[in-house]
Amino acid sequence: MASQPSRRSQRRRASSASSAVSLFVIPGLPEIRKGHPLAQLIGLASRRAGTTLEDGDILVVAQKIISKAEGRVRRLSKIRPTLRALALAKKLSSDPRLIEAVLRESRRVVRSDRVLIVETHHGFVCANGGVDHSNVLGRDSVTLLPRNPDRSARRLATALRKQTGKRLAVIISDTFGRPWRLGLTNVAIGAFGVPTLVDLRGRRDRHRKLLRATVLAVADELAAAAGLVMGKSAGTPAVVIRGYRYRFVEDPAARIIRPAKEDLFR
Amino acid sequence: MASQPSRRSQRRRASSASSAVSLFVIPGLPEIRKGHPLAQLIGLASRRAGTTLEDGDILVVAQKIISKAEGRVRRLSKIRPTLRALALAKKLSSDPRLIEAVLRESRRVVRSDRVLIVETHHGFVCANGGVDHSNVLGRDSVTLLPRNPDRSARRLATALRKQTGKRLAVIISDTFGRPWRLGLTNVAIGAFGVPTLVDLRGRRDRHRKLLRATVLAVADELAAAAGLVMGKSAGTPAVVIRGYRYRFVEDPAARIIRPAKEDLFR
Repeated sequence: MASQPSRRSQRRRASSASSAVSLFVIPGLPEIRKGHPLAQLIGLASRRAGTTLEDGDILVVAQKIISKAEGRVRRLSKIRPTLRALALAKKLSSDPRLIEAVLRESRRVVRSDRVLIVETHHGFVCANGGVDHSNVLGRDSVTLLPRNPDRSARRLATALRKQTGKRLAVIISDTFGRPWRLGLTNVAIGAFGVPTLVDLRGRRDRHRKLLRATVLAVADELAAAAGLVMGKSAGTPAVVIRGYRYRFVEDPAARIIRPAKEDLFR
Repeated sequence: MASQPSRRSQRRRASSASSAVSLFVIPGLPEIRKGHPLAQLIGLASRRAGTTLEDGDILVVAQKIISKAEGRVRRLSKIRPTLRALALAKKLSSDPRLIEAVLRESRRVVRSDRVLIVETHHGFVCANGGVDHSNVLGRDSVTLLPRNPDRSARRLATALRKQTGKRLAVIISDTFGRPWRLGLTNVAIGAFGVPTLVDLRGRRDRHRKLLRATVLAVADELAAAAGLVMGKSAGTPAVVIRGYRYRFVEDPAARIIRPAKEDLFR
């Protein structure tokens, strides 16, 4: 079943419409709280919107609602900062309780000059370790990244399969900054069902030259594409990508993390 | 005219289909050579494919064909490496003529440990300064990045306007690596017509909390989305993104480059 959409679209490939990929949001999700059955809510919202989920659809979900459903929310008022957090907070003119929350999510501080860039327990290098104020109820509350976003993606895909009868791929996305470029882009922090890195090495280009050093971070491009319709303030944290040709595989987004040893910029 | 698609889609926004963005390739472009009229060839190919370009469409074009049309192709056999290039090539086990081509495109070597990461004259930080073997005719030839990709984007948009009567935005994309994540993603190295960075600071999230530090690199997300259907080996270097809501503005992709002074990782 997994390879059907791919084979079908390869056959239709000659016409331009065949290569069409479309993206649309699933509107009308409620405010998510701990323990909420996300698959059920997504299934319900998509039916209400008149959208039928299809085999091969890729569902991109903002990390925020996964974290909320998993109870990865902390109240700053309940956090007691350590001396290290107090010192860092002073240096960064930030809230020591927030810094403490970040440090607890981190295994290493990468930079603390203007912003706090850390390596999380997962290995992600990002500002504030993914600890975030926005789009969470309560002035005092922050969300943490899911403990194991690849597992969260697999769980959601499995629950959606039961819920809808369809085999969907799932990507959990968050917005990360980049060292040499301004602005944030959506990247995949969790994935199930889609290839996360596609290795083209060994394939040939249109002039039959061997492609070198060409590994595409497909899951990140899928997340970025979804980011276009997701919006930070619009409250549309679930996006469907339809028509993208891929092979259904279990390929964790953790694989995208560059191993610290091979990293020249950590 | 520019704001029409945007207003229209905002009105339709309640239904899920309204937020739909679609992507498709313009198939059948010939091998591009110096001086080829890209706008004409793109107009012709899109008509042949039965695709009508529309006002507000965003055309994402791979850097490679812009470079070829602009004659930014070099034959390695005609390049005489300097002593510096010879030394670097030895260290990197690379072709000294390629390294020389890279150094000529660069204003600074950022790292030369396993790969040569440089800052180009434009300010882009990328492997080999964008000098690339793939998808160019001749075993011996490499392409360089366009001299001024924002100008190239504006020129193409202007020529397309004359050619088709439609107001299109243009993004010129290339695949860049990232320090903390494996794999390449498509980013915008040139742009005309779309906002490249969208600043959400000052806006509020769904709980009316102020969004902080949220600048989205929209042009990079558009380029990444196009990368999904572009393919490295398929020879489909032109992609149309339709249905994305934006305000038509002149906003250069050069603005996405993080100023060296603010960069903690250069």
